[in-house]
Amino acid sequence: MTAQGLEMLFDQLFPLNRSLTGEGVRESLRILQPHIALNVHEKPSGSQVFDWTIPAEYHVQEAYITTPSGERICDFAANNLHLMGYSQPYEGEMSLDALKPHLYTLPQQPDAIPYITSYYAPRWGFCISQNQLDALPTDGIYTIKIKTTHNPKGSLTFADAVLQGETDEEIFFSTYICHPSMASNELSGVLVATQLYQLIAAMPKRRYTYRFAFVPETIGAINYLHQHGEHLKNKLVAGYVITCVGNEAPFTYKQARAENCAANQIAAHILAHKHPNYHSIRPFFPFGSDERQYCSPAFNLPVGSLMRTMYGEYPEYHTSLDNKAFVSFEAMHQTAQTYYDICKAHELNQNFYSQNPHCEPQLGKRNLYNSLSTKQQTTSTNQTMMWLLAYADGKNSLLHIAQKANMCILDFEKTIELLLENQLIKA
Amino acid sequence: MTAQGLEMLFDQLFPLNRSLTGEGVRESLRILQPHIALNVHEKPSGSQVFDWTIPAEYHVQEAYITTPSGERICDFAANNLHLMGYSQPYEGEMSLDALKPHLYTLPQQPDAIPYITSYYAPRWGFCISQNQLDALPTDGIYTIKIKTTHNPKGSLTFADAVLQGETDEEIFFSTYICHPSMASNELSGVLVATQLYQLIAAMPKRRYTYRFAFVPETIGAINYLHQHGEHLKNKLVAGYVITCVGNEAPFTYKQARAENCAANQIAAHILAHKHPNYHSIRPFFPFGSDERQYCSPAFNLPVGSLMRTMYGEYPEYHTSLDNKAFVSFEAMHQTAQTYYDICKAHELNQNFYSQNPHCEPQLGKRNLYNSLSTKQQTTSTNQTMMWLLAYADGKNSLLHIAQKANMCILDFEKTIELLLENQLIKA
Amino acid sequence: MTAQGLEMLFDQLFPLNRSLTGEGVRESLRILQPHIALNVHEKPSGSQVFDWTIPAEYHVQEAYITTPSGERICDFAANNLHLMGYSQPYEGEMSLDALKPHLYTLPQQPDAIPYITSYYAPRWGFCISQNQLDALPTDGIYTIKIKTTHNPKGSLTFADAVLQGETDEEIFFSTYICHPSMASNELSGVLVATQLYQLIAAMPKRRYTYRFAFVPETIGAINYLHQHGEHLKNKLVAGYVITCVGNEAPFTYKQARAENCAANQIAAHILAHKHPNYHSIRPFFPFGSDERQYCSPAFNLPVGSLMRTMYGEYPEYHTSLDNKAFVSFEAMHQTAQTYYDICKAHELNQNFYSQNPHCEPQLGKRNLYNSLSTKQQTTSTNQTMMWLLAYADGKNSLLHIAQKANMCILDFEKTIELLLENQLIKA
Repeated sequence: MTAQGLEMLFDQLFPLNRSLTGEGVRESLRILQPHIALNVHEKPSGSQVFDWTIPAEYHVQEAYITTPSGERICDFAANNLHLMGYSQPYEGEMSLDALKPHLYTLPQQPDAIPYITSYYAPRWGFCISQNQLDALPTDGIYTIKIKTTHNPKGSLTFADAVLQGETDEEIFFSTYICHPSMASNELSGVLVATQLYQLIAAMPKRRYTYRFAFVPETIGAINYLHQHGEHLKNKLVAGYVITCVGNEAPFTYKQARAENCAANQIAAHILAHKHPNYHSIRPFFPFGSDERQYCSPAFNLPVGSLMRTMYGEYPEYHTSLDNKAFVSFEAMHQTAQTYYDICKAHELNQNFYSQNPHCEPQLGKRNLYNSLSTKQQTTSTNQTMMWLLAYADGKNSLLHIAQKANMCILDFEKTIELLLENQLIKA
Repeated sequence: MTAQGLEMLFDQLFPLNRSLTGEGVRESLRILQPHIALNVHEKPSGSQVFDWTIPAEYHVQEAYITTPSGERICDFAANNLHLMGYSQPYEGEMSLDALKPHLYTLPQQPDAIPYITSYYAPRWGFCISQNQLDALPTDGIYTIKIKTTHNPKGSLTFADAVLQGETDEEIFFSTYICHPSMASNELSGVLVATQLYQLIAAMPKRRYTYRFAFVPETIGAINYLHQHGEHLKNKLVAGYVITCVGNEAPFTYKQARAENCAANQIAAHILAHKHPNYHSIRPFFPFGSDERQYCSPAFNLPVGSLMRTMYGEYPEYHTSLDNKAFVSFEAMHQTAQTYYDICKAHELNQNFYSQNPHCEPQLGKRNLYNSLSTKQQTTSTNQTMMWLLAYADGKNSLLHIAQKANMCILDFEKTIELLLENQLIKA
Repeated sequence: MTAQGLEMLFDQLFPLNRSLTGEGVRESLRILQPHIALNVHEKPSGSQVFDWTIPAEYHVQEAYITTPSGERICDFAANNLHLMGYSQPYEGEMSLDALKPHLYTLPQQPDAIPYITSYYAPRWGFCISQNQLDALPTDGIYTIKIKTTHNPKGSLTFADAVLQGETDEEIFFSTYICHPSMASNELSGVLVATQLYQLIAAMPKRRYTYRFAFVPETIGAINYLHQHGEHLKNKLVAGYVITCVGNEAPFTYKQARAENCAANQIAAHILAHKHPNYHSIRPFFPFGSDERQYCSPAFNLPVGSLMRTMYGEYPEYHTSLDNKAFVSFEAMHQTAQTYYDICKAHELNQNFYSQNPHCEPQLGKRNLYNSLSTKQQTTSTNQTMMWLLAYADGKNSLLHIAQKANMCILDFEKTIELLLENQLIKA
């Protein structure tokens, strides 16, 4: 998929009202299915998942306010951010003063409509820019109309896709499908995950099985762990939450809680070699996105998160300003490529055994080394070969060797092929 | 006890002639007993304690020199530093030249009387300022009178106080009672230990038992270990030698020999958070005070030492200038408070288990988290709660979690209560 | 041996044509034997040693080119670097253009004759300075005469010397004897090893057995490991490849692959204390000299290399400019002394047990400590004594203790004697 393809998909998905549950999620997954072989699942409302309960299924029929002069404002049909997520239904009339406790604004960003939800406590409300609120007439009667339903017999919708590899060991990606009409947090993760799926599907061969989860944030990840947590504990090599990957800023890698896991080591290695001056590494912290669940004490899965500008660290975050103007499809394309480099690094990262561990093998007689001895520098292939042979004792991972050599693990790909062909190493 | 209370106690104790043994020690302990429930013990002179022998009990009746003109100088009655500690008795007449090898001065600090002892080799001598020595007439006969006794049937006096806690695991404090008429090294330690005892006695509840030892330096610590060393090896969680805590300078923490022990970690943590720009940390070294004995190879107890300006590092050290003018009772008060913070940190520092380790518990339904999701920052209590729950796997101490969170362990007190009440964690 | 003695030996050895095999090596060893008790060994050509085969024995009878004007150039008799090492025999006539592919120069260093070999692929060729090549007439016929033999019934010559110690645990030194007419790389290693042998032979007593190997590079080390590798795996405490030690530059220590081995720790410690601003430490890398073989995965011996300017890092390297003018016999003398300090450090580096581990022993009664207590600083001997006693628990090596004390391990020699005499420690 090209950057243009990502943009076309974005334009289809952006306006839909994705929430924890409901038709916006289902419609989004249907739009994605031609691009990624998603299996769509439904979990009934009311189901218990660990300490949580699957919420009632949420639908919005219409929602707006009529001003005293008859103007329709905060219309959900115009922008689904206007209605607080999971708002209770309400119809009535009142003064602006009485209405104000139900109107949410961002006084510091007077042009922006905030993104507000109240999933687990019953409230009704609208989100509006401070400027628009300030311009409303203070006299007269406002009419409120919120027609929403919360169906206790509904369900929560989520999806996954699995690319089987030679082994059942897995690399896992998770992204979320609940935020309506926001671009970097969160539609970019859905797009990058979809493109990454296509890149991995095209790999000539794969040691690892790759799993992609498209779930609503928090409750969706909890539900996914409720179903697949034990499997992931047994099989997971590395995982990443793909979120906030829409803009052009430097990469931010948030480490998994399991500090020295391969997920953290490989991500840091690829960033250091491919984007040396264009990234930062953050130790795990228990705020943020679904890594909170994946890394919870009983799972402690090796799941980190490669982002651009992190949630909470850009002013547009969780407002109507996190929109198409804020993101770059070229940047998403590059992010997918960086995730793909991480996958290739995991594929390469094995422990090798030299077949001639007593002294160096004689590379010259196999035409793997220049038979003329001069003071010239060795080639890059000579170097990767020598490093690998010197440390191929079954105890050093290729990543460890690449780090000793101060080279990128991806640069060892050709050398590994040559040494395997010549029966000088085995995996 | 207020800073004023500390000063009143100081004024009573300062003039007494505390030495390894003798009445000065006994009188000092009697003065302290209304403030700390000390148990006073006697160990007979001549007793063997490991490689050492309890010395004869030392008493000074009088000691002075009479100049050729009949002036009485170096009078023990005026300042007990004038007589070398453990001086042999001597009476005689001699020229100044003959007397000089028995007169100790500090040429670099010509106003100061040095503090000199000869506990284990028989000598007699006086300590005098260089200026006073230089002013003495060189002709004529000086008369020496030293009436001291060294009673082989006497004893060494020391004391301890124990505050029982819920468990028999102990936190230990040691200070020394042998230095006569010196203020920071050493009367300040005795005063701070006494105040700390009162603070701990007033704790609403204590997990740990607290032990305070008031012993003469070196031989007293050796004797204490001879009696209690095996007990301390079994029960000691952390210990500290309280010495050189009299002046207003930044804190110095000298680490216990056992590098990663809780004593070192907690002390460094409290200093980092409570006095971030006002302390230094020194690795263990085998000079100094009684930590030399507590940390000796066969014991290797987790005993460090929180000081102000360390022994040997201020010019007034071991001279008559280490006096009331040099110290601050406000500073002693603050030092006792810092030791108390260390104790509270030890009390809090446990390993907790989450009762809902599979994903996060739902805090909202327990009213522990805001049910309205906005882009606002989390509160400090939210943060401590999230950090603790994310790492409450029984393997991470609270100290370790606080350090990951870059927060002070003391800030977790309220959160621990809340989570225990809600049965979300257990110890 | 003095610096002058080293120079006399250098003058005898420098002109000889040392190669992997042949009379140049044998003659070199004969010249060394009065100075070091070398046992000379022969390994038949064609023998298999691990993945390698001992090459045919190489002899050069004569080799030169006659120019069209009848001038003899590139004469092996004038400088043995002119003939490519292991050149095939050849006699013939040709134009300069036809000859050029067989003429090796260094265009960047137009005055230098390069040192080139082709041990394992049959070639013939001459090495010549770029300036000399540029001056040759382009017309006319050149006559080539190379009379060399490669005797498949010959042998490879090498030698070793062993100084038996109290135990069979070994310290190993390896240097190489194959490079003809080059000074720092490599005749300096042979000279420094010889002097070091004499220093160690004169030690009053030795815990360790010392082994010196004089072998041709690569194939010689491989052959030595083929014979002694298992023995060295069992007995080696530390080893060093002595190479590139001829010039006056700061020391370079290349670490053994086994990162925390005593060889690395002791070498770094001695350099830090004896040459603090005059050395660098390089982590192991799989290029360089015979440490490549000693550190290969199946052996992984604790073998590093203390050098001056490392191979490949000085322009004179592997050219005719690495000659007597480039080296300093005073520097070689100092290098041998530094290697000797390393040996003394290994000898001293034991784990000691205090005989009085419960509290400090009373040093005063043994006259090991000043019985007068003043504020004066402790002496250096007091300090080493206190550090050693405080950590003499059998778990801390003397090196570890010296590093804690920030003192040189060699400064503990006298203290160890005193404490052993007084039965205060045992090894």
